[in-house]
Amino acid sequence: MRIDIITVLPELLTSPFEASILKRAIEKGLVSVHMHNLRDFSTNNYNQIDDYQFGGGAGMVMMIEPIDKCISKLKSERDYDEVIYMTPDGETLNQSIANQVSLQENIIILCGHYKGVDQRVRDHFITREISVGDYVLSGGELGAGILCDAVIRLIPGVLGNETSALTDSFQDDLLAPPIYTRPSEYKGWKVPEILLSGHTANIEEWREKEAYKRTEARRPDLLEE
Amino acid sequence: MRIDIITVLPELLTSPFEASILKRAIEKGLVSVHMHNLRDFSTNNYNQIDDYQFGGGAGMVMMIEPIDKCISKLKSERDYDEVIYMTPDGETLNQSIANQVSLQENIIILCGHYKGVDQRVRDHFITREISVGDYVLSGGELGAGILCDAVIRLIPGVLGNETSALTDSFQDDLLAPPIYTRPSEYKGWKVPEILLSGHTANIEEWREKEAYKRTEARRPDLLEE
Repeated sequence: MRIDIITVLPELLTSPFEASILKRAIEKGLVSVHMHNLRDFSTNNYNQIDDYQFGGGAGMVMMIEPIDKCISKLKSERDYDEVIYMTPDGETLNQSIANQVSLQENIIILCGHYKGVDQRVRDHFITREISVGDYVLSGGELGAGILCDAVIRLIPGVLGNETSALTDSFQDDLLAPPIYTRPSEYKGWKVPEILLSGHTANIEEWREKEAYKRTEARRPDLLEE
Repeated sequence: MRIDIITVLPELLTSPFEASILKRAIEKGLVSVHMHNLRDFSTNNYNQIDDYQFGGGAGMVMMIEPIDKCISKLKSERDYDEVIYMTPDGETLNQSIANQVSLQENIIILCGHYKGVDQRVRDHFITREISVGDYVLSGGELGAGILCDAVIRLIPGVLGNETSALTDSFQDDLLAPPIYTRPSEYKGWKVPEILLSGHTANIEEWREKEAYKRTEARRPDLLEE
């Protein structure tokens, strides 16, 4: 999988891709991530990529021309499955969208910044708009990082143990059950007996029950779907 | 505001705090962010902070003792309003939670990693569990970055123009209306006439109508609330 990220702040996202699972996925050649600084596609001498909004109001708007130039250059080099725009009013990212995106070959992710992009960018260049949640961030960069993390870890071979992702929350519309590790007692707080029993079938049954109980208590909406 | 982040991967989050709005907020002294490497609180010679889960199953679990030691040390130095655990089964972050957290003085954010933390950590040390969305990430670090960004930008003085945050999506349960900037025509695609008219009252009316239309089309759930 190839991911091209278009941003005005490429330096913001360096460390997440140089650590942990994303780093290992890149090193294994399972994914390649390319940052593109939108300022390199500015059409004037001031490296300008944003301007005041028509009609007045606070906040700058990212201009269409540098974005068009950057996306066109990328598209002239290869075909893309999606051009994704990170925006709080896009469709809300969930595990099923992450699963879908993880099957694609080449994607572009455009990070909004300031007040957002000129609407004509969204109307003419963007194929999918994704939000990571109902809150406003100072830019789309961290959202792009989240999307990449959620997607890349699903690519076969990225996680050491393939079954690990399948038992995560949301993969089966249930939250994960409680988990415990050593010591079995700490300051008088004990691990549930059943987990120490060695009876695999009973443990599985307990976990299913606990996952259901937790989902019912915290996220009944997941059970309704 | 002071934010203490406990993580096994402090290096993952360096760049987001060294760029853009978070960097400026720190430089202005409006917020201080402190990373704590959980491995520094390991209780054995291997810097071990995770172990196999009781009852079997894929994925490692973060142990209670190093986390207890780290949180206890911080609590002995000052009072904390919240000890937040980033987890996909926590309450889902939204703008109203971001507003609440932005009013607090000292918070600890614990990032889960691997399969998550020993349930006893959640039962005894955590005061609030927050999820950034219904998807699974390889760790809580990017979620912590998202929470910090959403919260820090709401602290008065952080954004250059205070009105900017107030006209964002979600602050009034409406998505933001379309925005445009120069040029007024690009490849035949024109900016709506009204935005070039100079009639402030008409423009405001148009924006409200568009915000409502977009919310109705994309997120009718926001209007029901």
